[in-house]
Amino acid sequence: MKAGTIKIVGTGLIGTSLGLSLARHGIKAQLADSSKANLRLAIEYGAGVEQSSEPDLVVVCVPPDITAEVVAQELKQHPNAVVTDTASVKSEISSEVKKLSGTDAKRYIGSHPMAGREKGGPGSARADLFFARPWVITPTESSEDSAVELIKDLALQIGALPIVMSVAEHDEAVALVSHLPQLVASSLAARLVEGDESQLNLTGQGLRDTSRIAASDPTLWLQILSQNAAEISPLLSKLRQDIEVLEKAFQNLSEAGALAKIHSLLERGNRGIAKIPGKHGGKFVDYQLLTIVIDDSPGALASLLTFIGDIGVNIEDLKLEHSPGAPIGLVEIQVLPESAELLAKQLTENGWRIV
Amino acid sequence: MKAGTIKIVGTGLIGTSLGLSLARHGIKAQLADSSKANLRLAIEYGAGVEQSSEPDLVVVCVPPDITAEVVAQELKQHPNAVVTDTASVKSEISSEVKKLSGTDAKRYIGSHPMAGREKGGPGSARADLFFARPWVITPTESSEDSAVELIKDLALQIGALPIVMSVAEHDEAVALVSHLPQLVASSLAARLVEGDESQLNLTGQGLRDTSRIAASDPTLWLQILSQNAAEISPLLSKLRQDIEVLEKAFQNLSEAGALAKIHSLLERGNRGIAKIPGKHGGKFVDYQLLTIVIDDSPGALASLLTFIGDIGVNIEDLKLEHSPGAPIGLVEIQVLPESAELLAKQLTENGWRIV
Repeated sequence: MKAGTIKIVGTGLIGTSLGLSLARHGIKAQLADSSKANLRLAIEYGAGVEQSSEPDLVVVCVPPDITAEVVAQELKQHPNAVVTDTASVKSEISSEVKKLSGTDAKRYIGSHPMAGREKGGPGSARADLFFARPWVITPTESSEDSAVELIKDLALQIGALPIVMSVAEHDEAVALVSHLPQLVASSLAARLVEGDESQLNLTGQGLRDTSRIAASDPTLWLQILSQNAAEISPLLSKLRQDIEVLEKAFQNLSEAGALAKIHSLLERGNRGIAKIPGKHGGKFVDYQLLTIVIDDSPGALASLLTFIGDIGVNIEDLKLEHSPGAPIGLVEIQVLPESAELLAKQLTENGWRIV
Repeated sequence: MKAGTIKIVGTGLIGTSLGLSLARHGIKAQLADSSKANLRLAIEYGAGVEQSSEPDLVVVCVPPDITAEVVAQELKQHPNAVVTDTASVKSEISSEVKKLSGTDAKRYIGSHPMAGREKGGPGSARADLFFARPWVITPTESSEDSAVELIKDLALQIGALPIVMSVAEHDEAVALVSHLPQLVASSLAARLVEGDESQLNLTGQGLRDTSRIAASDPTLWLQILSQNAAEISPLLSKLRQDIEVLEKAFQNLSEAGALAKIHSLLERGNRGIAKIPGKHGGKFVDYQLLTIVIDDSPGALASLLTFIGDIGVNIEDLKLEHSPGAPIGLVEIQVLPESAELLAKQLTENGWRIV
């Protein structure tokens, strides 16, 4: 079953990206936005056309704090359409919609495409935003199977991976893998406000990575987080307890058991990391790391990668590490272990410097 | 003034990398290690030779918990040499050395090259490890100026950036930019131990980055952290207080001021991030981001970069983003704003897909 006519409400990053994805697959979505400027921009980008006919599926892509209200409006306006949304927390919106729409709510099924960027707006949209990303669909007991299929088809059509979960399962999961990391990164970065320049000049990659997402938009995140307080709260409590144990251990390091408590936390961190699935959805593949020195000049990286491509070795991951203030760069590439030896040999023989 | 004969004690990651760096600049270091296997491996790698003559400078590169003791031994064994170390916490070692070596301690000056890798041992060593990285030197009142110069010369000789700080300044700085991030990442990752597979399958780049360094070696980190408890402790207290405020706000979100408290923390996180210096040691340059679609095949990235190199545009930063399980990749490149428009135009005109 394929969704016939699709209407996208809200042409920010998510709505415009969805329109672009559909357009690439030959589907012209109908677009709507309360901001005429955003709407025009999205249409100019090729994300779809203005609404002309009755939709079969409505996808509401508006900020989380007005999602329920807009979903209810759409259910009313299109009495035969299935309506979904893309907000990143589901239970509050789900109950709100039930309250606002009564029996119409059975045509609403929440969903959450797990994709985004630091920057919002139609100008940041990209057609590949959802490609190979999970698209969580959260039906309730009253949801019609055919409506779930409609949203699954939408996800599959644009190359996303549909995952069906209950509303509660979804919100519990994102509290752990998305909301807690955001709060942790922000709390860490907040400590830097009091740091002075000579201290921050010693910043390395560790702090940069650990704090990166603290640069996200506070207003949007407040909306997201405030809808998932019930799931975030117990995780924060446990985190606070762990940090309190650390705090006491560091305050009185000579006390019996203090070192063991710190070690245990570090070791639990190791075990937690090991549970994160690796690239390509599976467990970590043990890629081999090669680090090669290049000039920090136009074309240097290209000629290295041309050389590697000519040998026929696929680069699984690549990191460019600039030496601050220096005219060289280090390229860290990950390749399959079976390719590493050959590649290293060929690079060295051809004058590349591996470190 | 140049250090004449340099002795490196401890041929793990740091000692072997130092030997390799010196070798590249024509200096044969004398190596020592209590592990004959490590020593032989380091010599085979070309990191130096076995000790033969009296050194002018001794660099102790052993684990932090035995550094003071080994420094004291070296001060005694080489009564005319300046001795330094490379441990990542300085005050405890500095007082220990004073206690163990008395007036000899004036020939000891601590230092801390801010470089490392997740993996240890001579097999992970690389000649560029210290290149363009800060090398902190921590003299005390009793330190001789000429001894400080000797260590500065060593750092400069291998391309590191010598920074002179007091012992206390150093330890306070690394507590903020290195030790606190480690504890935060480990505490976050520890929460994942209780997560189940269906939850962790939703992991995105945010959680990956925030928790990455939690994979570090607990035993080594316990040694480092336990030597800096006095500086870590107040930072942990402040962090715990912030998290407690969040915890209470999420527990009672309808209470007056709860949302404002969460928003304030997120916003302070924004300000903290803004204080981290960007590439090339300066403040963030506002590079322009271009995202280009490529095939996930050998040579695809190379041909893109060749094209960019031919135009003469320098890539300031590059991130390869594989779509898990998918045969395409997204290349995010950062270029100077003045190059971005030209580049985007040329790429599009030549069939590259910018998203």
